[in-house]
Amino acid sequence: MVNLALIGMGLVGSQVLKIIEKNLQKYKDQYNIDFNFTAIFEYDGALISDAGISVSEVLGSHNFRDLDYWKPGVQAIEAIPDTKADIIIDATPVNPDTGEPALSHILKALKSKKHVVTSNKGPFYLAYENIKEIAEKNGVSFGFESTVGSAVPCLGIRDSLAGNKIKKIVGVLNGTSNYILNRMTSEGISFNLALQEAQENGYAETDPTLDIEGYDAAGKLVILANHLLGWNKTIKDVKISGITKVNEDMISLAKKSHMEIKHLAVAKDGELEVSLKLIPENSALALGGTLNGVYLDTELAGEIIITGRGAGGSEAAAGIISDVINISRRYLLADT
Amino acid sequence: MVNLALIGMGLVGSQVLKIIEKNLQKYKDQYNIDFNFTAIFEYDGALISDAGISVSEVLGSHNFRDLDYWKPGVQAIEAIPDTKADIIIDATPVNPDTGEPALSHILKALKSKKHVVTSNKGPFYLAYENIKEIAEKNGVSFGFESTVGSAVPCLGIRDSLAGNKIKKIVGVLNGTSNYILNRMTSEGISFNLALQEAQENGYAETDPTLDIEGYDAAGKLVILANHLLGWNKTIKDVKISGITKVNEDMISLAKKSHMEIKHLAVAKDGELEVSLKLIPENSALALGGTLNGVYLDTELAGEIIITGRGAGGSEAAAGIISDVINISRRYLLADT
Repeated sequence: MVNLALIGMGLVGSQVLKIIEKNLQKYKDQYNIDFNFTAIFEYDGALISDAGISVSEVLGSHNFRDLDYWKPGVQAIEAIPDTKADIIIDATPVNPDTGEPALSHILKALKSKKHVVTSNKGPFYLAYENIKEIAEKNGVSFGFESTVGSAVPCLGIRDSLAGNKIKKIVGVLNGTSNYILNRMTSEGISFNLALQEAQENGYAETDPTLDIEGYDAAGKLVILANHLLGWNKTIKDVKISGITKVNEDMISLAKKSHMEIKHLAVAKDGELEVSLKLIPENSALALGGTLNGVYLDTELAGEIIITGRGAGGSEAAAGIISDVINISRRYLLADT
Repeated sequence: MVNLALIGMGLVGSQVLKIIEKNLQKYKDQYNIDFNFTAIFEYDGALISDAGISVSEVLGSHNFRDLDYWKPGVQAIEAIPDTKADIIIDATPVNPDTGEPALSHILKALKSKKHVVTSNKGPFYLAYENIKEIAEKNGVSFGFESTVGSAVPCLGIRDSLAGNKIKKIVGVLNGTSNYILNRMTSEGISFNLALQEAQENGYAETDPTLDIEGYDAAGKLVILANHLLGWNKTIKDVKISGITKVNEDMISLAKKSHMEIKHLAVAKDGELEVSLKLIPENSALALGGTLNGVYLDTELAGEIIITGRGAGGSEAAAGIISDVINISRRYLLADT
C-alpha cells in the first residue's frame, strides 16, 4: 500500500484523482502498487482519513465539503507532518515570484521524511539546490517531471544519457508563445490579433505576461540546465526577452528566407538566455501549434530531440503520476 | 569498484573501451563509480586480469595479443561464469537469424548471476521473454538501450511514461533506408543510384539486404513493442516489406502532394508492420538524412516524439555505457 496526499483540487489535481481512480487495477497488475489517498487538501480545509478516502465518492459528490471526511480549516502546511501519506502531491496555484505555497509544502514534506511530487516549477527555478539538499539529508526524493513539458519526459531522459555528455540545450518551452508566433507566420496576422486568438482558444491566460515575456520559459530552462547539465542556477541568472516586439514585417522577412522566428531557451557555456531567434523552417524545433520541444547537443551522439504537448490538465497529471509510480517502485515497495 | 568484461573489440567495443578510459574520473566524481575491466574477449583468446586490465595499455599497444594478460584460445562462452566481472558487455558481430553468439553470451552471463549490456538486437527480437525470465530468476538485469536508435533513449523513456499509456508506436528505425528515400526525394535520383551513394558514404553495407528489405527495422520494432507496450512478440510476427520497389515516379507523385514516402515501422492493435507509407512533408517523422525517430501516441498526452542519430560507433557505445552506469547505480553500489 502506498499512501498519497494531494494538495489542491484544481485542473491538475482533479485530473490526478480521476486518472489514478480509473487505473487502480492497472497499477496493481502492472506494478503491484495499491494506491490509497489519506488526505486531500483544499485552501479551506481537507478530506482526511487514515484508512483511505473513497476517491470515487469525492469525485461523484455534489460538494465534497459535505462528506464525513471533510475537516474544515485544516491547512496542508500544518497537517503534512502528521498525514499518513508516503508521497505528497502538490498541485496548488503558485505565485511565480515566490514559488509559494508549493515551496513551503515541498520543504515541509521533505523535512517530515515524505516524498514529494509536483508540477509546480516555481520552487525549482528558485530553490533547486535547497530542495535537493533537504531531500538528501532526509533520505527522501522529489519528482518534478511535469514542471517542464508536462508529460514529455525532458527530465526523465537524464539517466538514459548517463554515458553521454550534454553540451547544449535549446528548447521551445512555452506553448502560448509558440502558438502566437506560428499563427503570425502562417496567417500573416499581427501580434495582438494572434494573442487575442490564443486567448479565445484557451491557449493564453487573461494576463499572458508570464508566457509572452519569457518568464515561464526561463523557469523551465533553469530546471533543465540544473537537472541535465548539473548547473546550480536560478531564474535570476537568465537573460530574458519576450516576443511582444515581433511584427508582421519581421515575420515576412524570415519567411522569404525559409526561416521561422522562434522563442528559444538556450543553455550553453554556463549562460542561460530566452530570446527570439531565426531558425530554418525545416529545423526540428520549427514546431507547429502549441508544441514544446527540447534539443540536446550531445558529445557522443549529436542531436537528440524530444517533442510533445507541453501543457494541459491530463498531460501534467500524467507526468505527476509517472513520478508517483517511479518513487513508489524505487523507494516504497520491496524489490519489484 | 564495478568490474566489467567486454566481449568483442570491433567498432562498438573499442569505442566502449576508449570512452570509459577517457571518462574514468568523471564516473568517479559524478556517480562514485570506479570501473575496472577484468576481461576483454576476442574470437581467438582473451585479455584477463582479476586485478584489472590497463585499458590505456591495451589501446596503446601495437598488438594487444602481445600483452602479458593475453590468454590465447580462451572463449567467452566458457569463461563467463568464472570472470570476476559484475557486468558483461557483449559487442560481438551477430548472425541476424540466430542472434548468436550474443544470445548465448547473454544467457550464460545471466545464469552466472552477472548483469548484461549489449547493443545487439538479435537476442531481443528473437528471445526477449526468455532473456527476461532468466534475468528475473537469477536476480540480475540486462541493458539494451542501444539496440534501438543507439544513444537515443527510445527504451529508457518507458519509466518516465509509467503514468501514461502508449497506444501506438510509429518509428523511422533504419538510417540507411531513410537516407536512400531522402536522397531520392531531394535529388530525384533512382533507388539504385541512391543506394550506391549510401554505400560510398558508408551509410549502407556492401550487402544492404537487412536494411533495405526492412528486417533491421522489424527487429527494432519488436523490441520497442515488447518493452514499451508489454507485448510478447518475435520478428516472425512482423509483416515486413522493403523499399526496393520505390521508383522516381512514386517519389515525384508524393512530392506534388507535399508528401514524403517513408519506411515506417508501426505497432498498433496487436499488429506489427514495416512498410512504405506516405506522410505529410512537414510531419515530425519526415526526418532528414540518416536520422531515426520514434513517435508514441499516448492516451493522456497525445504525441511524444524522440529523434536522433540511430547508428555509429560512439553512439552505440554511449547507449551501452549509459546502461552500464545505470545498472551499477541501481544494483551494484550502496545507495547513491
